[in-house]
Amino acid sequence: VTNERTLGEFEIIERFFAPLAAGAPGAYGLKNDAATLALAPGQELVVTTDLMVEGIDYLTGEQPALIARRLLRINLSDLAAMGARPLGYLVGLALPRGVGAEWFESFAGGLACDQATFSLDLLGGDISATDGPTVLSLTALGTVRMGTALTRGGAKVGDAVYVSGSIGDAALGLAALKGGLEVLSEEGRAALIARYRLPEPRAALGQALVGLVHAALDVSDGLVADLGHIGEVSGVGARIEAARVPLSAPARSALYVGAASFETVLTGGDDYELLFTAPAEADGKIGDAARALGVAITRIGSVEASPGVVVLDERGQPMEFRTTGYRHF
Amino acid sequence: VTNERTLGEFEIIERFFAPLAAGAPGAYGLKNDAATLALAPGQELVVTTDLMVEGIDYLTGEQPALIARRLLRINLSDLAAMGARPLGYLVGLALPRGVGAEWFESFAGGLACDQATFSLDLLGGDISATDGPTVLSLTALGTVRMGTALTRGGAKVGDAVYVSGSIGDAALGLAALKGGLEVLSEEGRAALIARYRLPEPRAALGQALVGLVHAALDVSDGLVADLGHIGEVSGVGARIEAARVPLSAPARSALYVGAASFETVLTGGDDYELLFTAPAEADGKIGDAARALGVAITRIGSVEASPGVVVLDERGQPMEFRTTGYRHF
Repeated sequence: VTNERTLGEFEIIERFFAPLAAGAPGAYGLKNDAATLALAPGQELVVTTDLMVEGIDYLTGEQPALIARRLLRINLSDLAAMGARPLGYLVGLALPRGVGAEWFESFAGGLACDQATFSLDLLGGDISATDGPTVLSLTALGTVRMGTALTRGGAKVGDAVYVSGSIGDAALGLAALKGGLEVLSEEGRAALIARYRLPEPRAALGQALVGLVHAALDVSDGLVADLGHIGEVSGVGARIEAARVPLSAPARSALYVGAASFETVLTGGDDYELLFTAPAEADGKIGDAARALGVAITRIGSVEASPGVVVLDERGQPMEFRTTGYRHF
Repeated sequence: VTNERTLGEFEIIERFFAPLAAGAPGAYGLKNDAATLALAPGQELVVTTDLMVEGIDYLTGEQPALIARRLLRINLSDLAAMGARPLGYLVGLALPRGVGAEWFESFAGGLACDQATFSLDLLGGDISATDGPTVLSLTALGTVRMGTALTRGGAKVGDAVYVSGSIGDAALGLAALKGGLEVLSEEGRAALIARYRLPEPRAALGQALVGLVHAALDVSDGLVADLGHIGEVSGVGARIEAARVPLSAPARSALYVGAASFETVLTGGDDYELLFTAPAEADGKIGDAARALGVAITRIGSVEASPGVVVLDERGQPMEFRTTGYRHF
């Protein structure tokens, strides 16, 4: 933490953030200019960064603890997509001046909770004031055996396409959070909202897939757009069958009663499930990993030579979408 | 880069940022979820993060290229304070929606310039929209031989206190940028403004100080506050002589004509010079390093047993200040 510029900032860091760094000797109790971190021999670093802006990437009024956990989890999802084990993170907070101890207590509490779940420590950070909406940045560091990181670039024609968990819940959860999907049961809406608020980074699964798969990423832009990313980087295309895309019970209900469209499910994003391609001979071991970790993994299609992503409906006809993913600009 | 959520974002990344990552194979052309980075054997990672908020940490209307270089340099200054060699960085941009190609061209151009100067590569980043002022975050990664990183915690009673370069220029430069210090020559004002806009991270000096000094940091909060930080973490105090604090010619002029106060110089911050303490026997080697690198290093005081920082005026009397450093909250 470098900008300990005032007593106020000092107190904030000392009281709310230093405890989060207690497990990392190289964080020096957040009293240094930078942190040090040693990697085990034969390991290399994996590093990613993500921003969340109030009113854009999360709704104004969300609990700080949930915002913190979501911020950490979307970064951990990127590490998972590379097959990396989490080690530590740094956080940057641009906050309105009125923010008080309660906010920090909740935010740091959220981080503490997920640090314990995912076994990593706070290494540093920075705080600044802003006259606008809150902007949060987080950089997550992980480690992987040298040369074994999963990437988007290795998909091969004939690979099967797999996805973990279920798709579309977060997009439907956001719609529910905004007052939509009233036709669903209270439990169903709550389950979808929870999936939006608190994505489940597939940390253990990502590590288990190292050596098994050709290409991987986490679904953040939307299933179709992200499969397109794999295809573009790998120089291939893909075909998926809509009916095979794994759906949760409330998502299925929402589609069944016409309260949501299949397009939203396939292109809505924020799923943070792992999407990956693997050769036929890996199928058994992928199934073993799924069972060992208690994570559903579904084969939804195949890698093809012709570029682009084709989604086939139940009659085998290509579906058309107005958009393939979320756009910031 | 994880949030390549739209064609627009893709184009921005491809056109302006991917070229900055061309030297780092582990950045995968910014087409992956995260970057990989291998450290040489026996090295450990040094990592730091800093935010800059428009209207708070820099003036609205500054050139994007200068904003980018300042953001990178204040992070590199933290690496320098640890004695680390820069390796790479990640950047997070929360930008108003109206920002166009010109802004990105200038911003990326600034980064390109300083990447070349300080020998590091872009490894990743994230872009989001915001309805408020621009918020920029940067995380810098460096490397140091295992266990040799400089910290704030090692100052010992009897150490000499040293500072690099000159102090107060940035604070006076900010005053000049806001229309003050009109009594100075145009050249003098321009020199001070340049020191505020474009700090000089003491990267080579920091690396040269490894093994020579007991404690170090970079002066960002203000000389007095930052020496206080060393004292607090090390469990000591310090005494400096105001007359020994190195001043540039325009800073000296500003003080001489009464256009600025000594308090501003000693507490204004943003100097990004290295402040460090070392035992008497290191003095010769510190001088050698200063000469070899062409960086001024001045001995300004000593580490004392009693806590707190005492600044003595020319008559040996303690000076009193209303504030010791900048406060965000």
